[in-house]
Amino acid sequence: MTCASEIIDLAKENQVMLATAESCTGGLVAAALTDVPGASVAFERGFVTYTNQAKIEMLGVRPDTLDAHGAVSEQVAAEMAYGALMHAPVQLAVSITGIAGPGGSEFKPEGRVCFGITGEHAPRTETVEFGALGRDKVRIAARDHALALLRGALSAM
Amino acid sequence: MTCASEIIDLAKENQVMLATAESCTGGLVAAALTDVPGASVAFERGFVTYTNQAKIEMLGVRPDTLDAHGAVSEQVAAEMAYGALMHAPVQLAVSITGIAGPGGSEFKPEGRVCFGITGEHAPRTETVEFGALGRDKVRIAARDHALALLRGALSAM
Repeated sequence: MTCASEIIDLAKENQVMLATAESCTGGLVAAALTDVPGASVAFERGFVTYTNQAKIEMLGVRPDTLDAHGAVSEQVAAEMAYGALMHAPVQLAVSITGIAGPGGSEFKPEGRVCFGITGEHAPRTETVEFGALGRDKVRIAARDHALALLRGALSAM
Repeated sequence: MTCASEIIDLAKENQVMLATAESCTGGLVAAALTDVPGASVAFERGFVTYTNQAKIEMLGVRPDTLDAHGAVSEQVAAEMAYGALMHAPVQLAVSITGIAGPGGSEFKPEGRVCFGITGEHAPRTETVEFGALGRDKVRIAARDHALALLRGALSAM
């Protein structure tokens, strides 16, 4: 059983609907969840907020937060996850914002990805330095980490 | 060169920003476009509107259209594409709504996918019957068809 299908099963058991807010993964997390037959019982919607403007308009991320910390920051990851929870009829949301490469940006290294997850509790965030694995591998690793966060949150319910 | 990288190049040449509105593909089209290094010059945002409520809230699809024609219809595909264009600072948007299976729904067969594309002109729609290839293959075929629609629209600019 894949991680995505475990997530859908756990969400169904817990009667939890899910949303995703993705930047560097660009839809990979939503695509993995909806790869599961019958995903519609648990996956509600996904926000692919690739630009700062999209993060602001779709998720309510504050321009001040983007200015102060940059798009790849735990502060923005927290606001993305919270924004997804507030803008969708869901009980659990995960966010991903990072630098897939090639090359770094915002004076931050390639492979740095920040995650947020929020449900009943305030957003929890973390940063993972995947390193300069290459764009594809960073994106896949970030997708899998986001799925693991969802599974962890659902397993603890 | 992949279709996605051709699309990003063509969009950059034409100074066109892109958005996606996906249902059955669940983020696969956005993920393919953002797989291209430097995609942020041309890909603005993606809407993964898996539920009817998400289609209504994120894209402004009319409940009456959903009731009259069902989510998998050219009418809904047209409103999804138009909604993406209206709700994002982009010049071209593509939409995908279909039945990936397993099994049909809404009295419609597995493998039926409706597409919409809109930019300078009114939404153009089409329906493709991919058949009961299996969920994964229908989703991949629908992703690739949507990418071909984007490439075609950009090539004609």
